[in-house]
Amino acid sequence: MTSENVTMQGPVCPLPISHYDHIMLGHGSGGKMTHDLVKRLFASAFNNEALAAGDDSASLPLPAAAQLEGRLSFTTDSHIVSPLFFPGGDIGRLAVCGTVNDLCMLGAEPLYLTAGFILEEGLSIEILQRVVRAMQAAAIEAGVQIVAGDTKVVEKGKADGLFINTAGLGWIPAGRHISGSLARPGDVVLISGSLGDHGMAVLTARGELGLETGIQSDVAPLNSLIAAVLKAAPNTHVLRDPTRGGLGTTLNEIAAQSKISIWLDETAIPVSPAVRSACEMLGFDPLYVANEGKVIVILPAAEAQAGLAAMKQHPLGQSAAKIGEIKEGSAGRVQLRTAFGSTRILDMLAGEMLPRIC
Amino acid sequence: MTSENVTMQGPVCPLPISHYDHIMLGHGSGGKMTHDLVKRLFASAFNNEALAAGDDSASLPLPAAAQLEGRLSFTTDSHIVSPLFFPGGDIGRLAVCGTVNDLCMLGAEPLYLTAGFILEEGLSIEILQRVVRAMQAAAIEAGVQIVAGDTKVVEKGKADGLFINTAGLGWIPAGRHISGSLARPGDVVLISGSLGDHGMAVLTARGELGLETGIQSDVAPLNSLIAAVLKAAPNTHVLRDPTRGGLGTTLNEIAAQSKISIWLDETAIPVSPAVRSACEMLGFDPLYVANEGKVIVILPAAEAQAGLAAMKQHPLGQSAAKIGEIKEGSAGRVQLRTAFGSTRILDMLAGEMLPRIC
Repeated sequence: MTSENVTMQGPVCPLPISHYDHIMLGHGSGGKMTHDLVKRLFASAFNNEALAAGDDSASLPLPAAAQLEGRLSFTTDSHIVSPLFFPGGDIGRLAVCGTVNDLCMLGAEPLYLTAGFILEEGLSIEILQRVVRAMQAAAIEAGVQIVAGDTKVVEKGKADGLFINTAGLGWIPAGRHISGSLARPGDVVLISGSLGDHGMAVLTARGELGLETGIQSDVAPLNSLIAAVLKAAPNTHVLRDPTRGGLGTTLNEIAAQSKISIWLDETAIPVSPAVRSACEMLGFDPLYVANEGKVIVILPAAEAQAGLAAMKQHPLGQSAAKIGEIKEGSAGRVQLRTAFGSTRILDMLAGEMLPRIC
Repeated sequence: MTSENVTMQGPVCPLPISHYDHIMLGHGSGGKMTHDLVKRLFASAFNNEALAAGDDSASLPLPAAAQLEGRLSFTTDSHIVSPLFFPGGDIGRLAVCGTVNDLCMLGAEPLYLTAGFILEEGLSIEILQRVVRAMQAAAIEAGVQIVAGDTKVVEKGKADGLFINTAGLGWIPAGRHISGSLARPGDVVLISGSLGDHGMAVLTARGELGLETGIQSDVAPLNSLIAAVLKAAPNTHVLRDPTRGGLGTTLNEIAAQSKISIWLDETAIPVSPAVRSACEMLGFDPLYVANEGKVIVILPAAEAQAGLAAMKQHPLGQSAAKIGEIKEGSAGRVQLRTAFGSTRILDMLAGEMLPRIC
């Protein structure tokens, strides 16, 4: 900027946002154009006191019920899903739900999110607006606030439309201990619903396969479902959402962390007919396809019935099922009793199956 | 993945990291390759208990001195700087310092960071390792822990090497109130050192200008400097780092938030001879060039001497200076008394000057 420019006086934003319908490099300058974009698009959608303060970070209270013996839960996820919009969701809903769910998996009450946008020069403002509205709707659904954000712009060809990072902060009440390391022999493994919907919905939306499946992503915030489970089964040991890598990879993580073996009944694992047939046609195993609205619950056998019943009563858990149990021996291994009565080892996903699914 | 693959048994990682020297799509799968990359590169560098737990989010205590009347400070920044390495720093150091500094600007004690990586297929592992090591060194320097992370991979040509998001969490002690909205008439404006070094260092590193300036970025964590200032001047009203948009834009933000006017003395504003001559040659105004290791301090006149002395005693504040004062009237306006005795209005940066500076 030359001194000639800076002596020029004018309103805070010389160009109303309606005057540009695409992202320009100036939207990442930190100057007037950035302020305009933030004010008109982000601050108006994610309207809350902390964000409106306009400081370098958000100043936030602990929840009213907090005690110093409680703990913070803190997580992050970047979202690069392609395409940006798919049946049942979009990158904005995914960015909010993915991070809310990661907080829930420690039994935390999700409180606050941040949102970091990396925008490609030339991105349509209308697309960005749709994504931002979806984020705000998902935040309201989950009962969280988006309290801080950041906007960067890279030149055309240096990103792919739009990437969103969300970080999340939650509060774990004193006395609650949930971790992938706490599965114990004798525990029961539950799943909150059918597997593979998100991954197959995104794959279908790419349109490369010429496939019309009608499959919708399951992307949803799981905090109210998990609150219901923890009320019914307060001694739950493990909560984890089988996202990238699917059920197979996630259970391998838990088996390794807890140093136990997991035995699954293939016939008990819910997979919708549409996902099953799409997977068969394309050579995928639904046990390795990503989910964005499902949770694995591992809990003592004595609480399994109550936990399962609580899930089934929740709109997001109607297809919940008991799918296996935890045993000693072969620590770290996941074994599947197949429909034919044989046993196979379910290993962690090797290589890449479906890139850019979240 | 076909069932043929999943029945194949083997070690947790079939390919040691040394067998691939570039990022592949499989590193973003969430499966074995992701686990291998995280274990060998990230977990070993950012070694701490919360990260090692391997759960979906980090479970963290409040600081020992916390009281429930205190507040959380929460912020995020994505980093897209180009080139990834520049004199005085790199994208990793920048990602840690940028977020640490945003936490400090509310007077918070920075505690925890998350790191979200978006990697382009084909990125050299050696480059990623250098960046990760720089992040860990900066985290140690700042006294924070990197407690959670995420790794995504996009196809070659769909990103530009490497983007890093960091989110940060800090603790604001009870009774501390610092905000861009708290500048008051009669307050004094201090700056912790010379302006424009980061922006000009990155620009020079691009090599497009054929310019050898010797300018180093000032990128540094400011928490210890700010702790010293707050000890000497406990009634400080505003702290803010003049990053993107530079001093001019940042002071405009403060003037608007606090509804006051800011008067600056151009001759008092420290700019190094190298930055001044590079800016003159290229037609830039150093007051709009980004800094990554400087802080604006606005405080009551009674504490100005003590605050300035505290800065000058700190290694990062040796060139600190009093550069202006806060007045009533012309609310939201920043005015500069020039070296020639005239007055000009310093507006917010319009458009884009130096893209991808942070």
